[in-house]
Amino acid sequence: MAQRLIECVPNFSEGRDPAKFAAIRDAISATAGVALLGAEMDPDHNRSVMTFAGEPASVCDAAYAGIAAAQAAIDMRGHSGVHPRIGAADVVPFVPIEGVGLEECAALAHRLGERVWNQLHLPVYFYEAAALHEERVRLENVRRGGYLNPALPPDLGTLPLHPTAGGCIIGARKFLIAFNMNLNTADVRIAQSIARRVRASSGGIPHVKAIGVFLQSRNLAQVSINLTDFEQTPLYEVVERVRLEAAALGVTVAGSQIVGLIPKKALEQVAAHFLQVEKFHPDLILENRLRRIPSGT
Amino acid sequence: MAQRLIECVPNFSEGRDPAKFAAIRDAISATAGVALLGAEMDPDHNRSVMTFAGEPASVCDAAYAGIAAAQAAIDMRGHSGVHPRIGAADVVPFVPIEGVGLEECAALAHRLGERVWNQLHLPVYFYEAAALHEERVRLENVRRGGYLNPALPPDLGTLPLHPTAGGCIIGARKFLIAFNMNLNTADVRIAQSIARRVRASSGGIPHVKAIGVFLQSRNLAQVSINLTDFEQTPLYEVVERVRLEAAALGVTVAGSQIVGLIPKKALEQVAAHFLQVEKFHPDLILENRLRRIPSGT
Repeated sequence: MAQRLIECVPNFSEGRDPAKFAAIRDAISATAGVALLGAEMDPDHNRSVMTFAGEPASVCDAAYAGIAAAQAAIDMRGHSGVHPRIGAADVVPFVPIEGVGLEECAALAHRLGERVWNQLHLPVYFYEAAALHEERVRLENVRRGGYLNPALPPDLGTLPLHPTAGGCIIGARKFLIAFNMNLNTADVRIAQSIARRVRASSGGIPHVKAIGVFLQSRNLAQVSINLTDFEQTPLYEVVERVRLEAAALGVTVAGSQIVGLIPKKALEQVAAHFLQVEKFHPDLILENRLRRIPSGT
Repeated sequence: MAQRLIECVPNFSEGRDPAKFAAIRDAISATAGVALLGAEMDPDHNRSVMTFAGEPASVCDAAYAGIAAAQAAIDMRGHSGVHPRIGAADVVPFVPIEGVGLEECAALAHRLGERVWNQLHLPVYFYEAAALHEERVRLENVRRGGYLNPALPPDLGTLPLHPTAGGCIIGARKFLIAFNMNLNTADVRIAQSIARRVRASSGGIPHVKAIGVFLQSRNLAQVSINLTDFEQTPLYEVVERVRLEAAALGVTVAGSQIVGLIPKKALEQVAAHFLQVEKFHPDLILENRLRRIPSGT
């Protein structure tokens, strides 16, 4: 049975009050047909991130429920936190998972935006694959000026933003893999040098963002990687390259961590690469075939 | 939603007559709740292999339907073929896939055996994890003497075997991964030497069977591997070892082939190994989490 699945990973401007956090989370998870995969509070940035998935219509309903709950719970006038933000339900991206394309996620973002503006009277911006203007593709551009002094007029609605809930940035993007590689050195400069050599912004590998960081708790340096399009740049390519750059600098990779979740397809690419499979196809995987089994009697 | 899945991979003593082959195949695939994953005729050996999966009770029903259809279609008295065999539905193994243990598959084999003897009057032998006697664990032992002159009395029923359909060997075993690694040499002796170094029977890696063969069509030597327990011996261990032995003999692995199907878990092990993930868990995979999503409204 073919599934149609998308994910939504909204950021809300509340990371300290457990009751407000719970109100938003529960509004999302109470929506029929969605599974809440994660919900995290970040007191430092006074933000929270929720991850949920399901069929497109259900995920859209849950996103709306979360935005409405955030509007009810959060008053931006009493808000503090270092992270730049435009509103209570700050950023709401849809992410294609299976049987759904990025274009459909962008269309869904537009439908959600209409509903948010029409029913909640929150001004809406569209970004990334849902952007209506080239200069609004990048989130940083849309968020510039923040809640109090937005640099751009909304795509739906007008300035000023909503007095207590601000605006809402809705969009569609590809799945992002967050992957950290730990080095057998405590020298953060080596991690920073490797990161510089592999990241796209300094001429490295397309779709790769990377920084070098020092992990105090483990006394080691780490290359922290975001891969924004694993279908264009397979994860194994990034890993092989980090290993080569590490070797060239006289260090090795001691271990790695997957942050959050990784799609099955990305792991299949890695396995097929390691195994040198000549003609890999997902139908070679038993479970992919089993999904077509009808329910038993 | 947790699934309970097993597979069944019966061998039938008919690999030349398309009508008889189709009759058996259709009896299996018409059973509610099972998916036919493969069905192959082998004219040389005059045998066919079918692969199907589903919930245990459905798979058991389909196996029974296949055995009954084979009994109706095949007359062993007019049978020829080099492969040793005991009956029309020669060997019927159940294989645990998900949420079901090997012991439960063995119990299912026993239930199927009772039904086959009571309703079809075919004498039944039990082998591998379903064996009732130590010396019947290995299929070769049970099959010794063949249809005309079986060396052992059946576990259910008595000799002589059924006049036209012989007996039926029913059992339970773990999933077998068939994996071939091609070398950048046409020298089959190198493949044979590598196979000897890695296979369990000559002191190599546990749960590994391997032979060296020459592929005429591609003019290259191949190490052909059966891994009978990938949970005890991960596939990556076999692959790394073959690469080492190949390098020691001055050749490299040019590519590989997965024969039949490979379980998701085996690929996850390979990916986690290549990526050096410190604490890999299947819950890190998006789709494994998504399976718990209730159906949308």
